[in-house]
Amino acid sequence: MEITMEQATTAARQAELKATEIQVPVNIVILDTAGYLKFFVRMDNAFIGSIDIALQKAKTAMLFRTSSEMVGEFLKPEAHAYGLSQTNGGLVGFPGGLPILKNKDIIGYIGISGGAVPQDLLIATAGSTI
Amino acid sequence: MEITMEQATTAARQAELKATEIQVPVNIVILDTAGYLKFFVRMDNAFIGSIDIALQKAKTAMLFRTSSEMVGEFLKPEAHAYGLSQTNGGLVGFPGGLPILKNKDIIGYIGISGGAVPQDLLIATAGSTI
Amino acid sequence: MEITMEQATTAARQAELKATEIQVPVNIVILDTAGYLKFFVRMDNAFIGSIDIALQKAKTAMLFRTSSEMVGEFLKPEAHAYGLSQTNGGLVGFPGGLPILKNKDIIGYIGISGGAVPQDLLIATAGSTI
Amino acid sequence: MEITMEQATTAARQAELKATEIQVPVNIVILDTAGYLKFFVRMDNAFIGSIDIALQKAKTAMLFRTSSEMVGEFLKPEAHAYGLSQTNGGLVGFPGGLPILKNKDIIGYIGISGGAVPQDLLIATAGSTI
Repeated sequence: MEITMEQATTAARQAELKATEIQVPVNIVILDTAGYLKFFVRMDNAFIGSIDIALQKAKTAMLFRTSSEMVGEFLKPEAHAYGLSQTNGGLVGFPGGLPILKNKDIIGYIGISGGAVPQDLLIATAGSTI
Repeated sequence: MEITMEQATTAARQAELKATEIQVPVNIVILDTAGYLKFFVRMDNAFIGSIDIALQKAKTAMLFRTSSEMVGEFLKPEAHAYGLSQTNGGLVGFPGGLPILKNKDIIGYIGISGGAVPQDLLIATAGSTI
Repeated sequence: MEITMEQATTAARQAELKATEIQVPVNIVILDTAGYLKFFVRMDNAFIGSIDIALQKAKTAMLFRTSSEMVGEFLKPEAHAYGLSQTNGGLVGFPGGLPILKNKDIIGYIGISGGAVPQDLLIATAGSTI
Repeated sequence: MEITMEQATTAARQAELKATEIQVPVNIVILDTAGYLKFFVRMDNAFIGSIDIALQKAKTAMLFRTSSEMVGEFLKPEAHAYGLSQTNGGLVGFPGGLPILKNKDIIGYIGISGGAVPQDLLIATAGSTI
């Protein structure tokens, strides 16, 4: 369950560098494999409303050990999973929540929000392997 | 209201055997007819996110004394039951929640989550008659 | 984080046998080390109101990796920790929540509620080492 | 309202160094002056239950622009402020939440939890001036 503080800081730093590079201020959430907050930073000028979105993306990824985008497949109307999105205190099924891998093992989850969806995903991806 | 501990354990055990047979780790919830938790087990490697889904499926079935799938008929967009899915703290309207029958009487409810929907339904069905 | 289903079932069974021996119907909760529900059983005639108490005792023990009773030391008026009891969605600081040990390692947490406090503790203790 | 990411990181780093020095793993929360999360880190082995306590201490300090300890004066039974502790989603009135000062101006709030109360206060103090 324990991603280390050092690992979490590294993953977040990688994401932050990418965000700076593409000039998109975001919220960066790192959860351990049990879903507890390990690291968080809100870049200057990132939206307040994106704090919770970043948290929910990472949480959604954690709950099903995959990306938030993949969970979104089951939240589409055509999946007919009525009410699924309201379980677990609310699921968020679009890109920006990813497992963090080290030597192919999942050691935690990253959630990014603040930019356009492809930007969030790009930034999350930068922090998803350490 | 009282499914016995022995009956609940039997129903859950039948579901667990089916889950093991088809190699799908799931969360198994048994509620009494009033909706209170009677028995729960999370099989090894079952998704954390499926704990709540299994609970909500069984609760949804209990609330209307039918299957969660049948309740889903009223949650479809074309049913025009606006806001229904948010009642009762959230309804979950897809397969995997069923009444438990003994001698054709409902003695409780079972909720299963962790696999694909048809797998969840197969496992729930295995625990729905004792 | 993963107490196995077999370990959880064993711990709960040990507790249930003690409860049966002293004729006190209780709710038995087993959480993994991250606080997620792994196993639950409500013995016949156990109080409905004790479901949540058993859950909260086990959760409180998990949050601080100790017994719920020990956490209660910080909840006493003379500890002057104003508002502490309302953190984490509510803490429960009286006996009946314990770590489950295997070879001196904490593998999960047990919470018992339904009897008098010394009875709950006796039953929890019976399930606290496997 | 805007403590910068750099300022928040500096304050948290000062606290972390003190925590490492006295060998107490804690949760470190930095809020902006509006109470929104700016930075968070959970040191390795810090209690899960202390995540929320650290958040609530910082929030309580922010709500009244003072220390969480000072708010605690109004939460004591002899203050007769019945129900006060339940306002604002719960107030936490013991040491470990402090304003962060820069040139005597409040730029944010720090909340620390994980050690004994005097330890938490010592660590919070280390991060309360930048």
